[in-house]
Amino acid sequence: MTGILYGVGLGPGDPDLITRRAARLIEQAEVVAYPSLAGGDSLARSIAADLIAPDAREIRMDVPMTRDRAPAQAAYDAGADAIAAELGAGRDVVCLCEGDPFLYGSFMYLFARLRGRFEVEIVPGVTSVTACAARAAMPLAARDEVVTILPGPLPDDALRRHLRAADTLVVMKVGRHLRRLRMLLSEEGLSGTYIERATLGAERVLPLSEAPDDAPYFSMILITKGADPWL
Amino acid sequence: MTGILYGVGLGPGDPDLITRRAARLIEQAEVVAYPSLAGGDSLARSIAADLIAPDAREIRMDVPMTRDRAPAQAAYDAGADAIAAELGAGRDVVCLCEGDPFLYGSFMYLFARLRGRFEVEIVPGVTSVTACAARAAMPLAARDEVVTILPGPLPDDALRRHLRAADTLVVMKVGRHLRRLRMLLSEEGLSGTYIERATLGAERVLPLSEAPDDAPYFSMILITKGADPWL
Repeated sequence: MTGILYGVGLGPGDPDLITRRAARLIEQAEVVAYPSLAGGDSLARSIAADLIAPDAREIRMDVPMTRDRAPAQAAYDAGADAIAAELGAGRDVVCLCEGDPFLYGSFMYLFARLRGRFEVEIVPGVTSVTACAARAAMPLAARDEVVTILPGPLPDDALRRHLRAADTLVVMKVGRHLRRLRMLLSEEGLSGTYIERATLGAERVLPLSEAPDDAPYFSMILITKGADPWL
Repeated sequence: MTGILYGVGLGPGDPDLITRRAARLIEQAEVVAYPSLAGGDSLARSIAADLIAPDAREIRMDVPMTRDRAPAQAAYDAGADAIAAELGAGRDVVCLCEGDPFLYGSFMYLFARLRGRFEVEIVPGVTSVTACAARAAMPLAARDEVVTILPGPLPDDALRRHLRAADTLVVMKVGRHLRRLRMLLSEEGLSGTYIERATLGAERVLPLSEAPDDAPYFSMILITKGADPWL
């Protein structure tokens, strides 16, 4: 009897936005696993901290932040091996994932390595997309409007094409691309709202024109052309 | 002292995917409001049923399903009036919303009517987008991939443009458009996964080629071109 791997979405940061299923799985977990960035704290662990049993075994995956993919892949290889050892011994493993496991989540790297060999269940979470819209009081889309989720690091021409094509744009991973994105949006005649660390203590919601040049990685720009429920 | 209006996302259907914050707000609510379609049952109320206090006052908005927008707008006018009366009397109102309140949610119609006059808080919920991906075991997007959420009723040429432009497509509101969408995807050389009533009892996950012609309104097609965590 092998264990089950749970990929558990924790939502955008406020522990109150954890789902009831995720909370129960974490409370009952004998083994939890989570990523941490470059030897720093783990945001995922900090969101779930109050729910983790004091005697739970913890598998920590230190993921280096480099442009080269090999070191990160090696970290997921090692993490997958440690998780496989627990699953193989019949213990379930609850993997903690910021936001949702399948939307730009690092859990996808573990899923690819373990899905064939073990049972995996994904527990979806509240994404930063709708959390940012809620905090900015900006309805995202009504009726037959098109929403595009767009990573900020994309090149200008790709960004422009998508900015023109959709009714609502959610620009993720803004970080050091903020100045370039602000210029691009201005050239396209679009205004946006900047949201930083949504639902966390240090949250900020600002017009894009007032956003800081040194935006953190966890920041977003929302642009809605329609989303008008009176039409 | 006026009350606060809470727009509370309930997630895709499984009551276990309600967030802890939403669950607490519903349990403590003196007044709950929810839409129901064309005099039928309210899906929103059924998701939250176990949490609603027996003595809670209930405001039900019967939204007719017509192409003409006026009858639905009239239903939201009446609902907003009933909610405003409670808020004006100092009572909080918890409005129950399937999925997330701001992503194609009918709560947007109430928000537009009441936001200026009363304090409104949005509690984001798990969307059917990531719930369907979880149930279909399909990672949605990695790295700098672009995700587009696309309503199925859009005309062919708009659908084609977006199908070509994004890495991952989430086609919502499939319903009676299923045959047309299947043909269109096939002409574009794309295969998809069909998901019906995700996380509810009657859930179905099928290759699009095997999907029923009479798909329900709450069905979706997922298409991923990339989402490959090995790259």
